[in-house]
Amino acid sequence: MDHSSLDFGLHTDRLAEIAVKIGVNLQPQQELIVNAPVEAVELVRAIATHAYRAGAKNVAVNFADETLSRIQAVEGADAIFDYAPAWRYDALHRAATEGAGFLTIFGADPNLLAGCDPLRLARSQKSHALAAQAFRGLLGGFKNRWSIIPYAHPAWAKAVFPGRPEEEAVDLLWRAIFAATRVASDDPVVNWQGHVGQLHARAALLTQKRFAALHFTGPGTDLRVGLVDGHIWAGGAVDAADGIRCLPNLPTEEVFTMPHRERVDGVVRATKPLSFQGSLIEGIEVRFEAGRIVAANASAGADIFRNLIATDQGAARLGEVALVPDASPISQSGLLFQNTLFDENAASHIAIGRAFGINVAGGQIEGVAGANNSVVHVDWMIGSGEIDVDGVYDNGDREPVMRKGAFTETAANIKSPQS
Amino acid sequence: MDHSSLDFGLHTDRLAEIAVKIGVNLQPQQELIVNAPVEAVELVRAIATHAYRAGAKNVAVNFADETLSRIQAVEGADAIFDYAPAWRYDALHRAATEGAGFLTIFGADPNLLAGCDPLRLARSQKSHALAAQAFRGLLGGFKNRWSIIPYAHPAWAKAVFPGRPEEEAVDLLWRAIFAATRVASDDPVVNWQGHVGQLHARAALLTQKRFAALHFTGPGTDLRVGLVDGHIWAGGAVDAADGIRCLPNLPTEEVFTMPHRERVDGVVRATKPLSFQGSLIEGIEVRFEAGRIVAANASAGADIFRNLIATDQGAARLGEVALVPDASPISQSGLLFQNTLFDENAASHIAIGRAFGINVAGGQIEGVAGANNSVVHVDWMIGSGEIDVDGVYDNGDREPVMRKGAFTETAANIKSPQS
Repeated sequence: MDHSSLDFGLHTDRLAEIAVKIGVNLQPQQELIVNAPVEAVELVRAIATHAYRAGAKNVAVNFADETLSRIQAVEGADAIFDYAPAWRYDALHRAATEGAGFLTIFGADPNLLAGCDPLRLARSQKSHALAAQAFRGLLGGFKNRWSIIPYAHPAWAKAVFPGRPEEEAVDLLWRAIFAATRVASDDPVVNWQGHVGQLHARAALLTQKRFAALHFTGPGTDLRVGLVDGHIWAGGAVDAADGIRCLPNLPTEEVFTMPHRERVDGVVRATKPLSFQGSLIEGIEVRFEAGRIVAANASAGADIFRNLIATDQGAARLGEVALVPDASPISQSGLLFQNTLFDENAASHIAIGRAFGINVAGGQIEGVAGANNSVVHVDWMIGSGEIDVDGVYDNGDREPVMRKGAFTETAANIKSPQS
Repeated sequence: MDHSSLDFGLHTDRLAEIAVKIGVNLQPQQELIVNAPVEAVELVRAIATHAYRAGAKNVAVNFADETLSRIQAVEGADAIFDYAPAWRYDALHRAATEGAGFLTIFGADPNLLAGCDPLRLARSQKSHALAAQAFRGLLGGFKNRWSIIPYAHPAWAKAVFPGRPEEEAVDLLWRAIFAATRVASDDPVVNWQGHVGQLHARAALLTQKRFAALHFTGPGTDLRVGLVDGHIWAGGAVDAADGIRCLPNLPTEEVFTMPHRERVDGVVRATKPLSFQGSLIEGIEVRFEAGRIVAANASAGADIFRNLIATDQGAARLGEVALVPDASPISQSGLLFQNTLFDENAASHIAIGRAFGINVAGGQIEGVAGANNSVVHVDWMIGSGEIDVDGVYDNGDREPVMRKGAFTETAANIKSPQS
């Protein structure tokens, strides 16, 4: 790639356009609510321009300065960490019921909260999750269209490219983002349509298999993940409640479904560090029994991980299992993005906590036997080029799904349904 | 002043401390809601630090990027300008009823909306004002403590110091802000206490006079402003509904009271341009009859001004009259700040639109004969070193209040009440 020739203005503008048109798929007279770091103001302006041109009746931006979280964690009185501003989340809930679309720009300093009291962080995380539960329930159930896109935050860039000058690191991270979000391709819209079609075909094939469980094996991992009866594999775009399609994650490489909250057994070793609340949790090793984590260790950040899984009853059980080929562009970049929404598209993963309604018929987890619930949902990576995955049928028969991180049935062999 | 020796970090920190402790007078376990331009993130962090140290249970920041307003005005479909996100204002209303304090950081590009369609801007202003009415009513009635402080926004600095390099202009504007907000003094807290005491003494003296009207005379101005019966002069700090004092404006040099909405007659010429919605309205000349503006002209921005006073029935009548000596530090700086909240402290002024409950016994304008109401409240400057002001009693007797912009009774002669 010719570094000097990349037109950042053009690519930022394309990313904004894809976020509005393919990510949220904003409709005329719809309100767009954008969550963004303050540093991303130029990208936000490009998004607002495309949104108004698409007929948005309003673009409301919630800018966040993550440093304020650190200031709170350091300077706040100990009594305050069980408080969360419900008035803020309830306002978003109302905007959602009034039909808004939501676009979140992620980009954060992975080391922001390093050294902060993990108990304070866990209390704060829980109180915010509770205050946001109704609102997040709407989005999780795709009552509204939403999307998440990346932004090359300087502190994030420096964490991904340590030792590089900030300007160079930001440049490199933008290039990685443009590649992963396919806006560097000749026709990003067509490119996305083709990619989404392949993810849909893969998900449809896996749904048809009706596996009872997935079995992950590899170094440090021998994990059987039971799936709920009638589980649906999802991936790529989603039809929201109004029947209009949105693309929740840009980039996205995963297909995912719903584990049974009581049918996960064995041991698993994380294949990448987990960036959580500004800390890197490294070398996670966990044992499951009857769905629950009964032993958890980590070479760094073990306390943070243990606080996380103690958040509530569902935080020590699985809500998602996802398959990503090791050949995915993000995995092949060889970069550790230290950001779950990026890294989860580099490797197969599991998530503790809340399950997604999209993974069962009816779109609601309530009343679904084995569906896990929690105020948290945290993905962590267990796939790599060394991991095999078998599908296990009810009768015990097995079928290879992935070998050394690659799907045994290639996308080219999958007949693409109409997408 | 030794330009090289000013410690910006120290002064910014002091401004933040005064905003929290004297401006909002934040109490332990109170929530603080900050409105700020995205550019002011460093000042916001200093404010959050002082707020958490003062025991804030949360600091919620609403960052705004003013450029988004211009993008909306330029790119938005014509149908959208009667919409305002009520869910946002209602959330602030709820936070207020739950006891939050409010701090607004102002600093804007005075030319931001130059060239935008004034009708779109007027529709948008009205719809936002209506959506915010209940919330602003709480603040106007001081149900909550609040304060407004300045920030040296680069575009603002370049407008105040045209022709200077941006960095130098920002430096000069910060120095002007530090001087006007008295944080450059040896002990800002003591300095503010003394200044507020003088404003309170001046207001108490004027209230005791029980003038029926004020009469402004000078070049282009011969204006009689009738006052409501039982009007109260205010200025400086305010006791909020919880009995705790706040200082709504930093800087503040004015004492002000409530005109009678039907008893304003004569002509008045503005002594400074009015910066409104990103445009400068210059050379305003207005004729009042029986309280209402019956003729309005301006050498620039006349359309914007006429749209403003046509917003609703109360927008062409007065809600405030304020006296500021020409000797005020802001006036003596010789600068046109192109920002009402600054410039209004450089000159006596009037405001069209909503009256303040603080200017009558009971603290509510409802039911007060002659109290004006409107969704707008816009100050504009009519004082200078050439303006005389008389107080007129019920029986027609007159008494000089200001001569050539100076109070006839000096602050030193006023006995300061306990403040």
